Amino acid sequence: MILLDEKFKAIDAENAPGQEMRQNEINLDSIMLGEKLDGVAVDFSHGDIDAFTPIPETAKVWMESYSKGSSQAYTEYRGLSEIRSKLSENLAEFTGRIIDANRELIITPGTQGALFLALAATVTEGVKVAIVEPDYFANRKLIKFLGGDMVAIPLNYLEEETLNGLDLKILEESFKGGVKVFVFSTPNNPTGHVYSKATVLKIATLAKMYGVTLIVDQLYSRMLYSGESFFHLRSADVQPDNLITIMGPSKTESLSGFRLGVAVGTPEIIDRMERLQAIVSLRAAGYNQGVLRKWFNEPDGWLDNRICEHEAIRDDLLYIFRSAGLKVARPQAGSYLFPQLPQLKVDLTTFVRLLRHQAGVIVTSGTEFAPLCTNSIRLNFSQKHHVATEAVKRIVKMVEIYRL
Amino acid sequence: MILLDEKFKAIDAENAPGQEMRQNEINLDSIMLGEKLDGVAVDFSHGDIDAFTPIPETAKVWMESYSKGSSQAYTEYRGLSEIRSKLSENLAEFTGRIIDANRELIITPGTQGALFLALAATVTEGVKVAIVEPDYFANRKLIKFLGGDMVAIPLNYLEEETLNGLDLKILEESFKGGVKVFVFSTPNNPTGHVYSKATVLKIATLAKMYGVTLIVDQLYSRMLYSGESFFHLRSADVQPDNLITIMGPSKTESLSGFRLGVAVGTPEIIDRMERLQAIVSLRAAGYNQGVLRKWFNEPDGWLDNRICEHEAIRDDLLYIFRSAGLKVARPQAGSYLFPQLPQLKVDLTTFVRLLRHQAGVIVTSGTEFAPLCTNSIRLNFSQKHHVATEAVKRIVKMVEIYRL
Repeated sequence: MILLDEKFKAIDAENAPGQEMRQNEINLDSIMLGEKLDGVAVDFSHGDIDAFTPIPETAKVWMESYSKGSSQAYTEYRGLSEIRSKLSENLAEFTGRIIDANRELIITPGTQGALFLALAATVTEGVKVAIVEPDYFANRKLIKFLGGDMVAIPLNYLEEETLNGLDLKILEESFKGGVKVFVFSTPNNPTGHVYSKATVLKIATLAKMYGVTLIVDQLYSRMLYSGESFFHLRSADVQPDNLITIMGPSKTESLSGFRLGVAVGTPEIIDRMERLQAIVSLRAAGYNQGVLRKWFNEPDGWLDNRICEHEAIRDDLLYIFRSAGLKVARPQAGSYLFPQLPQLKVDLTTFVRLLRHQAGVIVTSGTEFAPLCTNSIRLNFSQKHHVATEAVKRIVKMVEIYRL
Repeated sequence: MILLDEKFKAIDAENAPGQEMRQNEINLDSIMLGEKLDGVAVDFSHGDIDAFTPIPETAKVWMESYSKGSSQAYTEYRGLSEIRSKLSENLAEFTGRIIDANRELIITPGTQGALFLALAATVTEGVKVAIVEPDYFANRKLIKFLGGDMVAIPLNYLEEETLNGLDLKILEESFKGGVKVFVFSTPNNPTGHVYSKATVLKIATLAKMYGVTLIVDQLYSRMLYSGESFFHLRSADVQPDNLITIMGPSKTESLSGFRLGVAVGTPEIIDRMERLQAIVSLRAAGYNQGVLRKWFNEPDGWLDNRICEHEAIRDDLLYIFRSAGLKVARPQAGSYLFPQLPQLKVDLTTFVRLLRHQAGVIVTSGTEFAPLCTNSIRLNFSQKHHVATEAVKRIVKMVEIYRL
């Protein structure tokens, strides 16, 4: 069982966002410098759906779905046909390429489910997989669990905006070196960086040239801030042989409590994903699938307003961090901030625990996103505006207290 | 990718229950003997929750859960603490052994999710796993996918009732031969056989003696027919070092549309299961978890009445099958019937498709449950009583038409 021991060590969830309540409290009082900082507790490890509530009428639509009974409870493993049909139209329009609802789309338990299924369908022992650093923490864990060999591609995100972006030379080298699968998120989690059209086109071309399977996590692509543009890899003229695009209504639309995601792309991979879903969890919960009827079908102005409110929070938090001299990229999309901290008197894990204990602020450690990000923290700023700004002021105070 | 090709071939879902709509229709009209048989179409591949509806007030409890917002949407990966506390009490009482809610219980997306997580936490390439034939079809697929080596243990279920049961000699031989994990369902799916107390005690003792991990799927253990008794392996004096017991409200309680299951047992395995769940689907859908507040908390008499209604259907269907000379075991629990068919003019796959095409009856092929069950079909008889009896009469007619 040594192999299993190692695999499960690699997917340790103790510092994962949302798992803070399971940590053994070390005696923080003995380490703590100064007093506790007053203020409303904030959990930046995920968005606050009490601040940004689900799409209007979600409960009503769920109830209609529940009242349909058997036909809605027991769907095909890949999801109810009628809902896939509607979604395929919405997603084709959004991503710029037609989708065959019967062959090219699967509904999954969250985008996490889609990521797992897509990677498990393409990665096994010894397969070389390129990942981005920093990027969504589960990518690395999934590949370790599946036995793939990881190759890290650096993402610049703290430079002048024109210098930011993926290192395409290292990416091409990795493809030359035998990488078979490349998984990445755009907008990038945790930095909010949006891959430029030129970068996306180059990735598509390289993938086609070297026969690399692409798994593109676009979870946050609907929450695009003013002045920004998003280019869908699916809409590129040159298409790789194997491409899976992942999306879901968990973030911008605040439907995380329903565990719903979708993957669209290469039929053979979608088919594998369905087979695997059949033995992993059967299907996304039937009644919940019904809620997808509201996705891409929100009231007029609802999405614009949601983006606008997040942009205002983003700008305020950026101002507070930057005024205190902390480096932080301006997210082009999504609701994550990934500030870099100065050298501290305590290590990052301890500082993150002190933030919670002393300042009532939960954040996620940067090392979840890249092993070398030992001086960064991630915040999901989809929170009550005033509460978020006050909490970020406390983070800044804590940095001052513990600065080396 | 050859390895992956093989793995995904092994988990082909084309003939899995509920996937009938994805089959390519071969030209059945050219094979069909006689006319189509009239009658209300029945899908015996799963229970009809329009006939046996979810626990009363489920929708109300779900709505309360939804209205809790963030705290219910974002639970620990292993499920909301408060719900685990309550469930641990209910399940301790039901299974006869105390449960530490914090360490010994995880809420999963259905019992399918629990099975996947438990097996993935204990089985990897080359690990010998004992399975029962026949047994739940996903067990075999999961082990193949995980790379385990399967050893089949025969279950007698068509003998005189005292002769029925697991072949314990072959089981012990397999343990001596290096089996590390034994997974089985009791009540058995597809036969409805309930393992006797003597058998369960023997399994526990053997597992302890040979250091075998036990994964016991008790999904149907609440629907126990009159005169039958169920012995929980968890309540045996001799406990194996590693034991996971799986249950859920999808069947008897008709909550399949919520994708909820639980696993209780060895903390180290539960911990692994949580880590894996974190990267597979994060958690069982948060709002749906709330519905577990009704489980083991149903109105007085509700469960008794549900069992009674199923028993009446069971008896009628048994009578129809047996009157026609078909061999079929009398299920002691659950809502499955697994009749054996005589030799037919067409193979089983074709007959199952003809049943659907000609008689409007969907059943699951016996080969899903054991490779050698090429002459059996499985029915979930949790259906409208009269509709089920009429459909079984049509099955009997079809057997007569196609009998060799």
